[in-house]
Amino acid sequence: MSDIPGTLPGIVITGASGRMGQMLIKTIVASDKCKLAGAIERTGHDWVGRDVGEAMGGTALGVTVTDDALEAFSQAQAVIDFTAPAATVEFAALAAQARCVLVIGTTGLSEDDLNKLSLAAHHATIIRAGNMSLGVNLLTKLTKMVSAALDADYDIEIIEAHHNKKVDAPSGTALMLGEAAAEGRGVSLNDVRESGRDGITGARKRGDIGFSAIRGGDIIGEHDVMFAGEGERIILRHVASDRSLFAKGALKAAIWGQGQKPGEYDMLDVLGL
Amino acid sequence: MSDIPGTLPGIVITGASGRMGQMLIKTIVASDKCKLAGAIERTGHDWVGRDVGEAMGGTALGVTVTDDALEAFSQAQAVIDFTAPAATVEFAALAAQARCVLVIGTTGLSEDDLNKLSLAAHHATIIRAGNMSLGVNLLTKLTKMVSAALDADYDIEIIEAHHNKKVDAPSGTALMLGEAAAEGRGVSLNDVRESGRDGITGARKRGDIGFSAIRGGDIIGEHDVMFAGEGERIILRHVASDRSLFAKGALKAAIWGQGQKPGEYDMLDVLGL
Amino acid sequence: MSDIPGTLPGIVITGASGRMGQMLIKTIVASDKCKLAGAIERTGHDWVGRDVGEAMGGTALGVTVTDDALEAFSQAQAVIDFTAPAATVEFAALAAQARCVLVIGTTGLSEDDLNKLSLAAHHATIIRAGNMSLGVNLLTKLTKMVSAALDADYDIEIIEAHHNKKVDAPSGTALMLGEAAAEGRGVSLNDVRESGRDGITGARKRGDIGFSAIRGGDIIGEHDVMFAGEGERIILRHVASDRSLFAKGALKAAIWGQGQKPGEYDMLDVLGL
Amino acid sequence: MSDIPGTLPGIVITGASGRMGQMLIKTIVASDKCKLAGAIERTGHDWVGRDVGEAMGGTALGVTVTDDALEAFSQAQAVIDFTAPAATVEFAALAAQARCVLVIGTTGLSEDDLNKLSLAAHHATIIRAGNMSLGVNLLTKLTKMVSAALDADYDIEIIEAHHNKKVDAPSGTALMLGEAAAEGRGVSLNDVRESGRDGITGARKRGDIGFSAIRGGDIIGEHDVMFAGEGERIILRHVASDRSLFAKGALKAAIWGQGQKPGEYDMLDVLGL
Repeated sequence: MSDIPGTLPGIVITGASGRMGQMLIKTIVASDKCKLAGAIERTGHDWVGRDVGEAMGGTALGVTVTDDALEAFSQAQAVIDFTAPAATVEFAALAAQARCVLVIGTTGLSEDDLNKLSLAAHHATIIRAGNMSLGVNLLTKLTKMVSAALDADYDIEIIEAHHNKKVDAPSGTALMLGEAAAEGRGVSLNDVRESGRDGITGARKRGDIGFSAIRGGDIIGEHDVMFAGEGERIILRHVASDRSLFAKGALKAAIWGQGQKPGEYDMLDVLGL
Repeated sequence: MSDIPGTLPGIVITGASGRMGQMLIKTIVASDKCKLAGAIERTGHDWVGRDVGEAMGGTALGVTVTDDALEAFSQAQAVIDFTAPAATVEFAALAAQARCVLVIGTTGLSEDDLNKLSLAAHHATIIRAGNMSLGVNLLTKLTKMVSAALDADYDIEIIEAHHNKKVDAPSGTALMLGEAAAEGRGVSLNDVRESGRDGITGARKRGDIGFSAIRGGDIIGEHDVMFAGEGERIILRHVASDRSLFAKGALKAAIWGQGQKPGEYDMLDVLGL
Repeated sequence: MSDIPGTLPGIVITGASGRMGQMLIKTIVASDKCKLAGAIERTGHDWVGRDVGEAMGGTALGVTVTDDALEAFSQAQAVIDFTAPAATVEFAALAAQARCVLVIGTTGLSEDDLNKLSLAAHHATIIRAGNMSLGVNLLTKLTKMVSAALDADYDIEIIEAHHNKKVDAPSGTALMLGEAAAEGRGVSLNDVRESGRDGITGARKRGDIGFSAIRGGDIIGEHDVMFAGEGERIILRHVASDRSLFAKGALKAAIWGQGQKPGEYDMLDVLGL
Repeated sequence: MSDIPGTLPGIVITGASGRMGQMLIKTIVASDKCKLAGAIERTGHDWVGRDVGEAMGGTALGVTVTDDALEAFSQAQAVIDFTAPAATVEFAALAAQARCVLVIGTTGLSEDDLNKLSLAAHHATIIRAGNMSLGVNLLTKLTKMVSAALDADYDIEIIEAHHNKKVDAPSGTALMLGEAAAEGRGVSLNDVRESGRDGITGARKRGDIGFSAIRGGDIIGEHDVMFAGEGERIILRHVASDRSLFAKGALKAAIWGQGQKPGEYDMLDVLGL
């Protein structure tokens, strides 16, 4: 890792040709707090050897796509990786060798994968989150706090809205919020989850956490956590209005990681909560 | 029916001792646009013969509860009836004899009951609605209009929230709104209704009308009709904040009925839509 | 105007190099209901003579930018014009000669300009609107209807939210909605407008129409029209989530105009309300 | 203070004949977690010597209204006081003598009054708050936290809605929330407050905290704290639906105070935040 005072942290993007990879590159180029230090693709990919900006169909960025990750990591301060579990585990080992910050947005990691990340975290500063949006992570934290502060006199309902292409309900983020609410109350979400209310349901069961899923148009993602008591309601609400949110969250994490000791972190650490 | 110019219309309340009957009486007493002209209870009820105000635990109102409905109707300009189908059919016949306005909030009427109401409407001005709230009736009208104006590029979602004692989902009003939306599109709600979304649902089916039911605290009743297209959403929203809404709607109907020809009307007529 | 059965209506875009012109071209290219038939720029503009797709920095579209508007209009079924008053008036005269549909999104037209458009409308089908979003136009219509249906027992409040770059408050669309509300009540907005509530205001004046302006982040545009009565509220809400809404509205108008008699129309006609 | 194990805490209400006093008494009677132990009125008030339930126009409650506050306090575990500064200071001294919990909802206390309360708090457990709603106090806490976690890239807007009788804007609670937001950022609200946006305002000033006041119908009180950034918004929302909220909050405080050491507390302590 090079660390020349006065220069912006340089960030390497893995999976550069992917949808998320390209969005990360654009976000870095538009930022004045970091610079693009490298772009990785797998050996044999036709972007390898080309200028990444030109490969993306735009102007040259002065960064050549490479399949030599270790070499690229060594020249940089941070790596952002939204690829797949097998690649992520490998990148973590290389980040440990290069002593750099690694931000991981990859999902679907197994127990075994996570153990490997923990090993890598002896030498790399690893920040990992299922959802890189600052707002959603903050909402998760608030949900747990409010749930712990209020008793079951306050009914918890989680309402989410997404575009009409989404194939599952409730959303993963809604379930993450539900887990935070359950944790705040010291119960397991599985024991209190009530989703898909329809027909003769009977009165609401005290302590249940209800879920509603709205689908329509091009809604990017909206989540409400409602605490409804006698005479008052508290609603914690998150509205995503731009799909580049995740890229921005990852960038913020990469910059925050500069100067942190090796170890494992999440977005709540980045937020300082 | 007496009709002395310059006086306020006198209204008779049937089922005076019931929860809705008492709320109607209080609402009339508080109004400066009509006056209480009679209070009906069934023969043998212990309120019969007593002043209705005192029977309600308050001060005397100068109106004695009676079981002689025809006599009471003959002295009045309008009757408001939120009782049960059998009684309602009987009251309709008496209202026809007395030539007065009859506002009906009774639900669960059969095809046969409705035919009897139609007969009575040759001589009585009958206004009937499943929901007497002006706002909800207006929303129903708007829903049908918007649904007819927009094609299925706009996904329709109906979201309702009620208190934690409610035993069914979606609410009757949500279904009424869904029917208005389906009618606007020229389809049957049964063919496009999607409620209780949960699990792997697949992408939203074009043309579906979705329902979500939120339950919590003491929410009186909130309904959203959302039309979600590419790039925009229209939401028609109704929030009830006071359970006396239905009584007020019935009163407005009774006053509106003065001077209308005998026949059958609904709240949309009252609203002038 | 050519009108070969079985072909898609061809649309000409004026001011092709502008932000709105380019968005219109992209929207047409992405549509399967119409095709790009021409692109106009003023004489001397460096795009004239170039393929418009290439001039926009992308692939060729087979349409050469021209400064001969009449020739282009004659080959097309419709013209969409978001330029400036002087140009718009000129284009209207040419559209009248070419007997084609003209959709106008230009704002700031004077009384005199409007008179010239009326003359052109003897031979051209002219559709003009200050806001081309279908949803906002529909909301305007609904606002007037609800305002006419409810009396001043229902307080009207208009709340809008926009991004932090917006320099005026309330938004033009909010004022348009306020005018619709005032018209529904048969009053002038100037007499009842209350915006910028702050300090010791006294109780709300009956009949007033209140405005609130929220500013923050990158909110594209959200408008609520609230009718707040005793015991209930109706809220008509519009949420814009994509800046291409206006282009899409203009396209819909251009397609709708096919087969309409010459004359002046607005978006409410397009919506069939 | 008597403290017999197994019995419910007994609560004394000062200013028993006032609107808030009566609501507190009704709330205690309806609760199964405490009981009414006394009702205070000033010497000479015509309720003194009467059963408080009968004085309120209902059935007897077995508690006689007295003007001997010390005697009443000595028989009770807690006192709830929503009167006026001079009386509150006096009651605090008596609560100190009686060694009981004192919950204060009185507003408008001077610096000098507060000093006297501090003295009394050597022997009495004093819980004081400008707003006894649990939800609003929680929201204040959350607002400060979120404001501290996010930088000025997130624009803060506070939007409140109240009934049409309210004479000032923004509401006291909105200002309290604004102060919490300012405190979270380490600035003074006076330096960044922007309320009553109207006309040509220019772009939003970075770091400002904006206020909007909606007035209509019978809205009890709704508060939104919005943090609007690029691509996302977080909204913390409180909806009051019942005016008895304050009474319930006071009761909760009185019960929580049992077993707490003498000292000064607020609703955040009660909530355990």
